[in-house]
Amino acid sequence: MAIDIRTQALKKPIPVAHYLFNRLYEIGIRSVHGLPGDFNLVALDYIPKAKLKWVGSVNELNAAYAADGYARALGISALVTTFGVGELSAVNGVAGAYSEHVPVVHIVGCPSTISQRNGMLLHHTLGNGDFNVFANMSSQISCNVARLNNPAEIAEQIDFALRECWIHSRPVYIMLPTDMVEKQIEGARLDTPIDLSDPPNETEREDYVVDVVLRYLHAAKNPIILVDACAIRHRCLDEVRDLVDKTKLPVFVTPMGKGAVNETSPTYGGVYAGSGSQPAVQDLVESSDLVLSIGSLKSDFNTTGFSYRTSQLNTIDFHSDHCKVRYSEYPGVAMKGVLRKLVERVDTTKLSNEKLAPKVVNEVSENRDDSETITQAFFWPRVGEYFKEKDLVVTETGTSNFGIWESKFPPDVVGVTQILWGSIGWSVGAAQGVAMAVKDMEEDRRTILFVGDGSFQLTAQEVSTMLKHKLRVTIFLIYNDGYTIERCIHGMEAEYNDISRWNYTEIPTVFGATDKEVGKHIIKTKTELEKLLADKDFNEAKGLQFVELWMPKHDAPRALKLTAEQSARNNALME
Amino acid sequence: MAIDIRTQALKKPIPVAHYLFNRLYEIGIRSVHGLPGDFNLVALDYIPKAKLKWVGSVNELNAAYAADGYARALGISALVTTFGVGELSAVNGVAGAYSEHVPVVHIVGCPSTISQRNGMLLHHTLGNGDFNVFANMSSQISCNVARLNNPAEIAEQIDFALRECWIHSRPVYIMLPTDMVEKQIEGARLDTPIDLSDPPNETEREDYVVDVVLRYLHAAKNPIILVDACAIRHRCLDEVRDLVDKTKLPVFVTPMGKGAVNETSPTYGGVYAGSGSQPAVQDLVESSDLVLSIGSLKSDFNTTGFSYRTSQLNTIDFHSDHCKVRYSEYPGVAMKGVLRKLVERVDTTKLSNEKLAPKVVNEVSENRDDSETITQAFFWPRVGEYFKEKDLVVTETGTSNFGIWESKFPPDVVGVTQILWGSIGWSVGAAQGVAMAVKDMEEDRRTILFVGDGSFQLTAQEVSTMLKHKLRVTIFLIYNDGYTIERCIHGMEAEYNDISRWNYTEIPTVFGATDKEVGKHIIKTKTELEKLLADKDFNEAKGLQFVELWMPKHDAPRALKLTAEQSARNNALME
Ligand SMILES: Cc1ncc(C[n+]2csc(CCOP(=O)(O)OP(=O)(O)O)c2C)c(N)n1
Ligand SMILES: Cc1ncc(C[n+]2csc(CCOP(=O)(O)OP(=O)(O)O)c2C)c(N)n1
Ligand SMILES: [Mg+2]
Ligand SMILES: [Mg+2]
Repeated sequence: MAIDIRTQALKKPIPVAHYLFNRLYEIGIRSVHGLPGDFNLVALDYIPKAKLKWVGSVNELNAAYAADGYARALGISALVTTFGVGELSAVNGVAGAYSEHVPVVHIVGCPSTISQRNGMLLHHTLGNGDFNVFANMSSQISCNVARLNNPAEIAEQIDFALRECWIHSRPVYIMLPTDMVEKQIEGARLDTPIDLSDPPNETEREDYVVDVVLRYLHAAKNPIILVDACAIRHRCLDEVRDLVDKTKLPVFVTPMGKGAVNETSPTYGGVYAGSGSQPAVQDLVESSDLVLSIGSLKSDFNTTGFSYRTSQLNTIDFHSDHCKVRYSEYPGVAMKGVLRKLVERVDTTKLSNEKLAPKVVNEVSENRDDSETITQAFFWPRVGEYFKEKDLVVTETGTSNFGIWESKFPPDVVGVTQILWGSIGWSVGAAQGVAMAVKDMEEDRRTILFVGDGSFQLTAQEVSTMLKHKLRVTIFLIYNDGYTIERCIHGMEAEYNDISRWNYTEIPTVFGATDKEVGKHIIKTKTELEKLLADKDFNEAKGLQFVELWMPKHDAPRALKLTAEQSARNNALME
Repeated sequence: MAIDIRTQALKKPIPVAHYLFNRLYEIGIRSVHGLPGDFNLVALDYIPKAKLKWVGSVNELNAAYAADGYARALGISALVTTFGVGELSAVNGVAGAYSEHVPVVHIVGCPSTISQRNGMLLHHTLGNGDFNVFANMSSQISCNVARLNNPAEIAEQIDFALRECWIHSRPVYIMLPTDMVEKQIEGARLDTPIDLSDPPNETEREDYVVDVVLRYLHAAKNPIILVDACAIRHRCLDEVRDLVDKTKLPVFVTPMGKGAVNETSPTYGGVYAGSGSQPAVQDLVESSDLVLSIGSLKSDFNTTGFSYRTSQLNTIDFHSDHCKVRYSEYPGVAMKGVLRKLVERVDTTKLSNEKLAPKVVNEVSENRDDSETITQAFFWPRVGEYFKEKDLVVTETGTSNFGIWESKFPPDVVGVTQILWGSIGWSVGAAQGVAMAVKDMEEDRRTILFVGDGSFQLTAQEVSTMLKHKLRVTIFLIYNDGYTIERCIHGMEAEYNDISRWNYTEIPTVFGATDKEVGKHIIKTKTELEKLLADKDFNEAKGLQFVELWMPKHDAPRALKLTAEQSARNNALME
């Protein structure tokens, strides 16, 4: 192979793949998700060379879900797929990450630039010589698309893409042709880390916003703080914590914000989601004369069907790319800097706090009935008592996502949900990614998954990947004979909401686990549940625990019923 | 609900969903694939009303694969998914159908036109108020996109979309908003069936092409016929059969064309794929002075890496939308009409046929070695003997897709492969669809699936749908410890080509099957294989048979090795 002049001019020539994977390592990634395919095989050889681990999921959609979960737990993640077939299998998972502001680096091994230029009729193409069609599709769900076609530009493209991914907290798409994988580029660049710092706000503008906010805040009679998804996704939890600690204002989370604040803090008041909230919560939030709304994302399922009764006149919105005080907008002023200055400048002597936040407890006895049936109302507060500090709790679209509102978290519990995108099956992949991140961070924490029987079926095989990597995951599978959430929306007894009955607890065994590696539990009664949740081995197990949890087919959390009714109404609305 | 003037003017007002599903029934569909979601639930109520069956797959990708298989077996199929999450999960399956010319009607239940207009922040959106983004993505892999937003146009849009789907033999995308599902439209239109007839060629042009072809054909010394994928997909098999029967010319199929001609016909000569062909086949085809190439699709995996040594000067190409005689092109002249006239007008006394087609047999004894190991070389001819008339044989990307070249089919065997798109896991879904189509056509035929252990893992849960509908499927799972085809391309011992070992034959049991419903067979030796293939119960079983077939990890069919080498070379090629 002729070494061209450009290569000779390089100080430390290294292959493109080496550069790329070293950058992934540098920004914190330790495991790379994905599946092989002939257009990415040579690139995969460079993964261990960069001290990264290859996860090797069971299919690409699961891998994308896992990458999503991994990024939520560790900060950022990478996914490698093959051209066409692999990347399109993953596209729904990546779209979810886009929708929910999760930074996933999607690297697609694609045909060589020579094959592309010659329009070759290759496998994994549409047969029309168009090699950009999939990148175009992905551009809709990526904040940056990098086509690595020219060695002279590749390092810059990679660095830019990774920075965009992190800053915007959204997926980027990197198209890596087979003939570029081993092209030599400048390795000396690696000596300078990529700058991932948030672009600072313009000082004068930022100060102006802080002043305005403080003016309202000092004047308010019963201000509250409401924390939503984007506070998590755009990494403002330290600022939020400090604000809560200093101001001691009542603080609430939305469903998508659950886990964002310490729920044992004295001023934590619970989950606010409009009419789906507990009455005392709804009352306090909606009677507040100033809502500091941080990172809000007011989707239907996050607001019990748009049922907020707060007024914009009483609201200050903090967002990742702008702030809004009542109706005054401040584009380009990111919340992070503003919140930090608020913490520094707020005059706590000027704060009034007329109403105390409702006390949040796991209402176990209040929801216990005489029967042995495990009801939704009973289960969620009860499981709240089972949670421990630092658990990572993953919940799936369905009854779980609404039930979890009624579980109070111990400190430092991370909540992982996909309420806006709401793709079922996601949680099984995501739990794998979360548990992998925990392992990579060398932390001793539990990943606890709540997933419906319907959702589980879509992505069941990702349990195989959990086993392969000996991940620590406790799965509660809600066994309620089908798509209960859909029944609540439409078709209570419709056949299309039924599913086949699997022998769920045998799934790990079929995937090759021995009985020593996995705990299997079929739990049909409150007594059995109490016994399980009290069991030391179950609580402390390091591997996979699989619980099939029987719950009534037509039973649903209160908030789900309300949301479902509103969805049905909205769907049916005609002009 | 106010009945508007337009509705009053309708002769037989019926709901949109009723119209749509009745049209699907009319064009031959009996089962509708897909998954529910709140944006399609009300529409699903209309499926049984149109005498259609709801399949209810386990996830959307599997459903799309199944719809692809169903269409290949029955002619056309339908897939219903929900907005965003459902449709994007299916997109890789639909792209495969587009790539491989398979007519699938993809119906996506989406938010109401009112929600869309108001840009509501609904679940299953990207959170940006853009409700067209997914339709735009799908437009790349659909020959028609119909957004059913205006009742006055909907019937016409549906009829047009279904016609396009059929005529072009490619997917169409129909976006059905919740508020349109029950809008009244003109039911009287249903009295007139949709015209699905192929648009005829212009007579003078068609006659001209036929004359030219005949001139070359009558002059040729050893013309042959080569039948490829598009002959199947564009429904020209009757014309092909009549041409072969009348001319008695040697006829060959490509890998993607396998099953297109009667392999017991005296002039059938085998599979031609360039250097991957049997030597006698390659010799005869490449020395022919006139190749009548019908529906060719010369992708890398269909040609052993572009290794044809035929000359365009000796070739006449018949395509669905044009013909080409040597270098003369005839756009707009579709092969179907041309082939029919060729059959009618060919003067058999003027045909010469200097070389006889090689005799095709299943070379079982030739490939039997002394060991008990089931080799690829031995297996495929042997299984050729096991096939029966009218079997439907589904093969997966991997060793199966190449091995099957060495199996001779009895008459009326249908071959189902996805060689161009090549998405692994496809075959499990496709086999469900094929078997469902057989059931719907009330035919007593076997669906036989050959799938690698790696591929199977991606879509394993579709076996659950086979069981739910008591489909008749025999699964041969090639148990060879991972991605053998990828090993042949790159990374023979690489970890990323390994997979977890599952207890495959227990999969049906975990999905709820009793031992009466399913036959489980672990086959490690030639003796065990012989016994199984001779077993009457196995041969005639009406339900699911699951065979775990042990084959050596590094063993691959001859043609696969050649193709893999060429792929690796092509991927690595640098300038
Ligand atoms: C990929 C995808 N397909 C379909 C849907 C529509 N959907 C939303 S929830 C749901 C049913 C979930 O059932 P299950 O997991 O059993 O939950 P539960 O019974 O606890 O409500 C379906 C089909 C979806 N959200 N995502
Ligand atoms: C969806 C998808 N992901 C990845 C690939 C790349 N790929 C092609 S074949 C293959 C391995 C197939 O292995 P297996 O089914 O075990 O076949 P065999 O061992 O018989 O070759 C892979 C990973 C693909 N074609 N499609
Ligand atoms: Mg359920
Ligand atoms: Mg294999």
